[in-house]
Amino acid sequence: MSKTYRVAILGATGAVGTELLELLESRNFPISELKLLASERSVGRALKFKGENLVVEPVSDRALENLDLVLASAGGSTSKKWAPVAVEKGAVVIDNSSAFRMNPEVPLIVPEVNPQAAASHQGIIANPNCTTILLAVAIWPLHQVKPIQRIIAATYQSASGAGAKAMAEVKTQAAAILQGQEPVAEVLPYPLAFNLFPHNTPMNNFGYCEEEMKMVNETRKIFGTQEIRISATCVRVPVLRAHSEAINLEFATPFSPDTAREILSHSPGVKLVEDWRANHFPMPIEATGRDEVLVGRIRQDISHPCGLELWLCGDQIRKGAALNAVQIAELLVEKNLLKSAQAYISQ
Amino acid sequence: MSKTYRVAILGATGAVGTELLELLESRNFPISELKLLASERSVGRALKFKGENLVVEPVSDRALENLDLVLASAGGSTSKKWAPVAVEKGAVVIDNSSAFRMNPEVPLIVPEVNPQAAASHQGIIANPNCTTILLAVAIWPLHQVKPIQRIIAATYQSASGAGAKAMAEVKTQAAAILQGQEPVAEVLPYPLAFNLFPHNTPMNNFGYCEEEMKMVNETRKIFGTQEIRISATCVRVPVLRAHSEAINLEFATPFSPDTAREILSHSPGVKLVEDWRANHFPMPIEATGRDEVLVGRIRQDISHPCGLELWLCGDQIRKGAALNAVQIAELLVEKNLLKSAQAYISQ
Repeated sequence: MSKTYRVAILGATGAVGTELLELLESRNFPISELKLLASERSVGRALKFKGENLVVEPVSDRALENLDLVLASAGGSTSKKWAPVAVEKGAVVIDNSSAFRMNPEVPLIVPEVNPQAAASHQGIIANPNCTTILLAVAIWPLHQVKPIQRIIAATYQSASGAGAKAMAEVKTQAAAILQGQEPVAEVLPYPLAFNLFPHNTPMNNFGYCEEEMKMVNETRKIFGTQEIRISATCVRVPVLRAHSEAINLEFATPFSPDTAREILSHSPGVKLVEDWRANHFPMPIEATGRDEVLVGRIRQDISHPCGLELWLCGDQIRKGAALNAVQIAELLVEKNLLKSAQAYISQ
Repeated sequence: MSKTYRVAILGATGAVGTELLELLESRNFPISELKLLASERSVGRALKFKGENLVVEPVSDRALENLDLVLASAGGSTSKKWAPVAVEKGAVVIDNSSAFRMNPEVPLIVPEVNPQAAASHQGIIANPNCTTILLAVAIWPLHQVKPIQRIIAATYQSASGAGAKAMAEVKTQAAAILQGQEPVAEVLPYPLAFNLFPHNTPMNNFGYCEEEMKMVNETRKIFGTQEIRISATCVRVPVLRAHSEAINLEFATPFSPDTAREILSHSPGVKLVEDWRANHFPMPIEATGRDEVLVGRIRQDISHPCGLELWLCGDQIRKGAALNAVQIAELLVEKNLLKSAQAYISQ
């Protein structure tokens, strides 16, 4: 009989948490015991897993005992507080927050790109930011053939990036507007229905917001190079749960769109969506609920001899968060890396 | 008494047509007689102008007689058919379609950029494409100080660009989705509510759509240079009537963001919207109904020493179409250029 694991989802009731639950079931992750943990607010709620009702428990020192794996998706401060506790108690934590991503001792992994980084984990593995994951999956196969020198990205990010409440808010706002009422913004800083705005994360002194700097820094860390120059403009749009990105790539020498197309047509995690005649390319509604990053509109940049333009869409909750985390967990199982730093020490 | 003119709006009942009517009234354009022309479908409808009901007439040879100015906004094929007739009968035509824009004998004008081009008109003046107008107004003042070498644009285009019916469709679709029903797409090729897709104009052999090539070719014509290299990705988003654009500019030498900010803070047709602390930048809902192009998030491109990033929003129907056309008409009045080629010939 193959090995099974004691797993906890921290932040089980959130948009990503419920998707994690669904993915652990549908992908048949080898679980012996599953614990759902969340903040006090959600404690007592019951969620279905393989036909069984699991009741959400409060996160605590005790709740984190006797676990092999914790999938954390409850925000940065919760991760900062509880991930080290879980690791100390013997679990490996795959953390969906930004808390540990840039920590040099924490691997930041997109399984299609840098699975080898998992080997060096010391208990915590970070799951990258959604926009970064989608971008990395789509352009890594090209980077392998010819190093990318520069990326200019403009994003079209769905409400789901701000959580389930933001998704509900954009619908409530749309309903209000359709009835001639003023939309109310409580979760997001401005009305998002029939509107859009630059990503609402704090701006640094250079005028880039946190989300944009995540794309810059995380992409470099995942690709294992500081040489790629990256600029991004991140924008929230009134879409529910799939992000889109307009990507301009620059290489040292020309990169034929046909070659790029050929490469991406068999790259892991990528689905080419390009019907030039029907004007059918990746769209959020078609990326929603799918595992792959949809890529299309691959074309020679007419403003630069070594430039390539492409367009992508991916499910923000799925490959942008929950699926990537579960894929990391599967990678750990496959490579027999699902043991905590403690376990390594005691070996 | 100052001179007044006999004016017709061709396509008076469309999204741009009704805005033209409103602008001619609110800006007090010197009109002696106003005619509303449209296709058979809209004939007989009455629209208010200065408190008076004007009945829409069918366009015909006869209807185009005895006019000084025709503001045409009824699509390319209507313009191709009727603009030459109007000119022949003595009127100047300001055409909002793409029919004549790239004709070397037709000036293509953004009054803040190239008003001098009006002097050479031969009866027809073209009003540029909406995305181009908004971009041109925002970056021309920078180009004056230091020539722009390259532009990479990603657009977020509202439903209004596809007309009043598309605006209604996106609302109907949103209502359907909120009620758990399937959205129906009739005007646009795909559902737009809670979705987005690459701009639905035909693609050329290089993978650029017509809308993108308009940005490339029209910007060059308006700026009077073929030297600027431009690439664009045009995307339709579920916003009603203001376009947004993420713009990356490249110069030969660095362009300080503070200098750019200072220049744009007093440039005609531009309003700087930049509150870094409150994370408040241009948004479609705040651009809607405004004359100015809102510009913000001006920052040094961290991927290029001579790059500058900025973000803009502008009312697609207003400055992106109707307002620019009326401003051209005002320019013709001011410069005494509101006389047709015939009038010049008979002088």
